Amino acid sequence: MEVRVLDKRPYEPLDAGTLPRRLAAAPGLAPRIGPAEHWRVREVGDGNLNLVFIVEGPLGAMIAKQALPYARCVGDSWPLSLERSYFEYHALVRLGRRDPGRLPQVHAFDQEQALIVMDYLTPHVILRKSLMAGEVLPHLDRQMGQYLARTLFRGSDFAMETAHRKRDLALFAGNVELCGISEDLIFTDPFCISRRNRVTPGLEEDAAAVRADRELKLAAATLKRKFATCAETLLHGDFHSGSVMVTAQDSRVIDPEFAFYGPMGFDIGAFLGNLLMAYFAKAGHDAEDHARAAYEDWILQLMEGVWSAFEGEFARLWRTERTGMLGLAELFEHGGDAEGAEAALEAVLGDIWRDTLGFAGIEMHRRILGLAHIPEFETIADLPLRAACERRALAMGRRLMLQPGTFPDPRQVSRIARSLRTV
Amino acid sequence: MEVRVLDKRPYEPLDAGTLPRRLAAAPGLAPRIGPAEHWRVREVGDGNLNLVFIVEGPLGAMIAKQALPYARCVGDSWPLSLERSYFEYHALVRLGRRDPGRLPQVHAFDQEQALIVMDYLTPHVILRKSLMAGEVLPHLDRQMGQYLARTLFRGSDFAMETAHRKRDLALFAGNVELCGISEDLIFTDPFCISRRNRVTPGLEEDAAAVRADRELKLAAATLKRKFATCAETLLHGDFHSGSVMVTAQDSRVIDPEFAFYGPMGFDIGAFLGNLLMAYFAKAGHDAEDHARAAYEDWILQLMEGVWSAFEGEFARLWRTERTGMLGLAELFEHGGDAEGAEAALEAVLGDIWRDTLGFAGIEMHRRILGLAHIPEFETIADLPLRAACERRALAMGRRLMLQPGTFPDPRQVSRIARSLRTV
Repeated sequence: MEVRVLDKRPYEPLDAGTLPRRLAAAPGLAPRIGPAEHWRVREVGDGNLNLVFIVEGPLGAMIAKQALPYARCVGDSWPLSLERSYFEYHALVRLGRRDPGRLPQVHAFDQEQALIVMDYLTPHVILRKSLMAGEVLPHLDRQMGQYLARTLFRGSDFAMETAHRKRDLALFAGNVELCGISEDLIFTDPFCISRRNRVTPGLEEDAAAVRADRELKLAAATLKRKFATCAETLLHGDFHSGSVMVTAQDSRVIDPEFAFYGPMGFDIGAFLGNLLMAYFAKAGHDAEDHARAAYEDWILQLMEGVWSAFEGEFARLWRTERTGMLGLAELFEHGGDAEGAEAALEAVLGDIWRDTLGFAGIEMHRRILGLAHIPEFETIADLPLRAACERRALAMGRRLMLQPGTFPDPRQVSRIARSLRTV
Repeated sequence: MEVRVLDKRPYEPLDAGTLPRRLAAAPGLAPRIGPAEHWRVREVGDGNLNLVFIVEGPLGAMIAKQALPYARCVGDSWPLSLERSYFEYHALVRLGRRDPGRLPQVHAFDQEQALIVMDYLTPHVILRKSLMAGEVLPHLDRQMGQYLARTLFRGSDFAMETAHRKRDLALFAGNVELCGISEDLIFTDPFCISRRNRVTPGLEEDAAAVRADRELKLAAATLKRKFATCAETLLHGDFHSGSVMVTAQDSRVIDPEFAFYGPMGFDIGAFLGNLLMAYFAKAGHDAEDHARAAYEDWILQLMEGVWSAFEGEFARLWRTERTGMLGLAELFEHGGDAEGAEAALEAVLGDIWRDTLGFAGIEMHRRILGLAHIPEFETIADLPLRAACERRALAMGRRLMLQPGTFPDPRQVSRIARSLRTV
């Protein structure tokens, strides 16, 4: 993968005028999009965390993403270091190697300017918007399941040379700030009083019940411990439906700035949890009709299909690429016990599935009770209706966190989701 | 803690003649042991992995430990990097801060020479030898239980500022070589055919049965996964009865060169597993008499006492020093639910206990079926008797690995050990 790291200059937020001068020096861009003097540059980001530029030339277009030294959230401004761009770059390169073509290719990285130049994805739209619009994406389940299996398996000691994995573990251990955001916003705030929390009017008592639910808080504590200590693989770290861009045929994964070494189930659980919330939000939007019911069904099938594709691809990699020091072919295949390797696979998948359920459940809590809500619920204008939808999602999340053992497979998750949907 | 890092010179193995010239430049030594021209230096190591010098002056004595660039094991020589001295130094300093006085204090560290100068422990002897000699150590259980609780708790995200913990995690992720030794010798070799393995004559069929025991191999695979991915705290990493030096009143922990971020149960399990083997080895040495039976009982009491002291001290630290981001007082005490914090403590201790049992069981396998045997068994001259003792230990280890849930507490471990002892 060809990536140029440009020479050093003090950081300054760029604009449509200064960006071409800054990037003209980057080799690899002109051959792909044409000479800098013919570029057209537009800033298209929402300016919350990053500046996002589309750079168009006669031959093509690219995205230039520059980190800003703060985050604007809910009218609040908090400082956020530019270093996150460094971790995003390293994650893009690694995850992109593990599932080629699934992430935008990086064409230039300027660490000093916290600036990444990469593929401009078009006509892709954010998956979350596509789900809200009710679009059926026939390949998404397979593409996402495979993406998860390939990145999670290939970044782990099942596949990697362990000295290499340990170097990467050390590198991403530096991503303290963004891990800290997850540690606070996902695993702590929703279960206590925090000035960052926000709930839909009418949901105050539910939030108070969660704060008084000792069993649930113990489950949250256990999940936080897993998140913080289980350095299993390189995660995307923020893998929800806002981190995927889709067309009817294709899907791409973006924005891995929260990347770190954590438990496999965290990425999968975040994704499945967001699909479940998309499911529970549908009742707040469209009139009860056949089209809506069919789309709700499709969302649940999508969720089942993602896990099923994950499981299938993980098993394939287990059988063909298990070369790392946790592969342990010495104990099984090399000892004439190939069936033992299949039993070991089953045990690993069982552990990942249980973790996935717990992390899905906590994601559903934090998106409803914490700081960062999701548009699927937020755009339900009828507040009592929104609260009702969120309440069902909370009930689902609680069950996932507390009784993972009662879900042998994703079909059972769908069954319970359907039963809660009609409450 | 005052530690001097000396100026750089190319590595060379030192001897009694060159060592004083090398160390004369280190401030902090002369005030403690007297001027270099009056030092007497003796090399006392076995030369397997390290050179060990006693440096005596008119005011006192110190140990100087220099790593050699290879390990001599079972007649075999394999290269081993000098870097392990760097990790040992950093571990000595950190563990020593977490349980002050329990490790030798470091007075100088010369990274280039892979040389650590530290307290000379006298009249301490290696705990393993003391156990073989049948000495009763009335404070050992409390001292070791407290040591484990303090180092494991204070090195974790229960107590540490997480950016600091993540920096240490990254630092010790570099200890690839020594972790690799554990990964191979503890978690892999005993369960497959390896040219490094060795068993007592008469135990060949038992070793073959272990290699054919799928359930046991699956448990070993799960424990290896835990070892490699669960970066819970800074471990000693090789915490057996050869890494402890004792007098009747005092005990000290030495040689933490295998230190890395791993699961708490690994240190505790290695220690308890070695105590259990000391117990099972007794029948191979002394005639069946009252004194032996009493000492066997004492070893089991010691094991129970170590866990009980660990548990007590861990609980004390939980209540008084739980300031890290896994502390979660926000969810419990600050939310008016102090009992919830006690329930969370119980869950954490339960997890540590289960891990401890599994790691104890695997330690017992690797010391009997793998490369590194222990003198307790090795000195039993009667080979069928030695094999019988080892067979009982293997049965104990298997039960610990496969049925940790059947041991609610260490008293049950003792009961099962006693029942196996009479087989």
